[in-house]
Amino acid sequence: MDINLKEHERLDDLVLDGMKLIQRDDQFCFSIDTVLLAHFGKPPHQPVLDLGTGTAAIPLILTARGATGLTGIELNPVMADIARRNVELNQRNHAVRIIEGDYKKIASWVRTGTFATVYANPPYREKFRGACSDTQGIRRARHEETATLDDVMEAAKYALKYHGRFRMIHIIERLTDILESMRKHDIEPKIIQMIYGHRHANAKIFLVEGIRGGNPGMEVLPPLIIHEADGNYSREVLRMYGKAAPGEGM
Amino acid sequence: MDINLKEHERLDDLVLDGMKLIQRDDQFCFSIDTVLLAHFGKPPHQPVLDLGTGTAAIPLILTARGATGLTGIELNPVMADIARRNVELNQRNHAVRIIEGDYKKIASWVRTGTFATVYANPPYREKFRGACSDTQGIRRARHEETATLDDVMEAAKYALKYHGRFRMIHIIERLTDILESMRKHDIEPKIIQMIYGHRHANAKIFLVEGIRGGNPGMEVLPPLIIHEADGNYSREVLRMYGKAAPGEGM
Repeated sequence: MDINLKEHERLDDLVLDGMKLIQRDDQFCFSIDTVLLAHFGKPPHQPVLDLGTGTAAIPLILTARGATGLTGIELNPVMADIARRNVELNQRNHAVRIIEGDYKKIASWVRTGTFATVYANPPYREKFRGACSDTQGIRRARHEETATLDDVMEAAKYALKYHGRFRMIHIIERLTDILESMRKHDIEPKIIQMIYGHRHANAKIFLVEGIRGGNPGMEVLPPLIIHEADGNYSREVLRMYGKAAPGEGM
Repeated sequence: MDINLKEHERLDDLVLDGMKLIQRDDQFCFSIDTVLLAHFGKPPHQPVLDLGTGTAAIPLILTARGATGLTGIELNPVMADIARRNVELNQRNHAVRIIEGDYKKIASWVRTGTFATVYANPPYREKFRGACSDTQGIRRARHEETATLDDVMEAAKYALKYHGRFRMIHIIERLTDILESMRKHDIEPKIIQMIYGHRHANAKIFLVEGIRGGNPGMEVLPPLIIHEADGNYSREVLRMYGKAAPGEGM
């Protein structure tokens, strides 16, 4: 297939189903966080919405988990263009639709209660907090410059059907804010998984799933430990990359 | 030392500093949860208050960590009697004071802002939820029969000085309720540690520390895994019981 890369663009390997991903050096690139979120829990009920889809990495990984009714919404026109080209490049047009738009105005794009699952890998820091990249694209994706946590939750609440599921990855620092905000938006937090770099390291990020209109209750899944003592990826992470751990068949 | 045991009483080993503990078969007995809470974080700033101290297990373990300014409050007169006798039995009268009283009326017993650290190992389930023991003492300690989560937080808020620390162990099921209630009572949740029975098991309980008047923020400590794959206690747990793990000096 012919791939026309524009300035600042590069072609990366999504390390799954042979998929490729156009990314830009001066924009937020997908990382292990994106992979962890897309592999969190069972394959999602459909239709699925990804809020702030970036390069469309989450919907693309979800196609490898069998999903076909996927919509990604992206505010940044440069990224929305890349997202669309990534969908084409991987021949997933039947499964993934990209909307260029602002999820703060989600009512212009989708009907309320449409989605069975909503994903979000939103900006991690509050505006003006923490180290800030010089590059606007990265700054936008890492900070709450274009959308706050409450904006994310507002959009998720609007988009989700009754008992639909919301899935997000975020930094530990915001844990209390997030659980509060989810509850405030009638998305009851039900499942958390803490992500530890090593068995003896603090968790820096976590996965959370909430249910629209759900009853109170919480499960904390087994620790997701990224690296074993020997520095290699753990079995759980290798499985996400489609690799068996030593001693396991493929 | 002569130890006069009353009906239903038995003498257990606190497995620390040679301390012994009178307990009753028909009341809530100390468990690993109590040990985990008493070993959570650095030795506490003093003075220390333990809400619902039961047999005084927490203050007694804290004396082994160097604390001397300890107060335990206990509603149940049978337990308060045992708590006092446990303090005497272990010759800790200089370090631990037991108040028989209701912490819902804490203002009758202590002045506001007195304590640098407040501990709570409160009833785990909401009233009328979950399996309920036939024995009133156990039911009281396991269920919110005599005090709700908000009562605990109300008492902690009253007792703590500005920037004093609150430490609690509780079930995962109540995680969101707890973080919300702490914040509502101006005790900002700052540190959480998830406790996993095994590396591949869900966490059922967690430790939390909050700071009275603290700023938002959160740290999640490394996973506390109770049992290794071979079924033995992990190094972290062995250390709490004063035992070195294999390969470590004492």
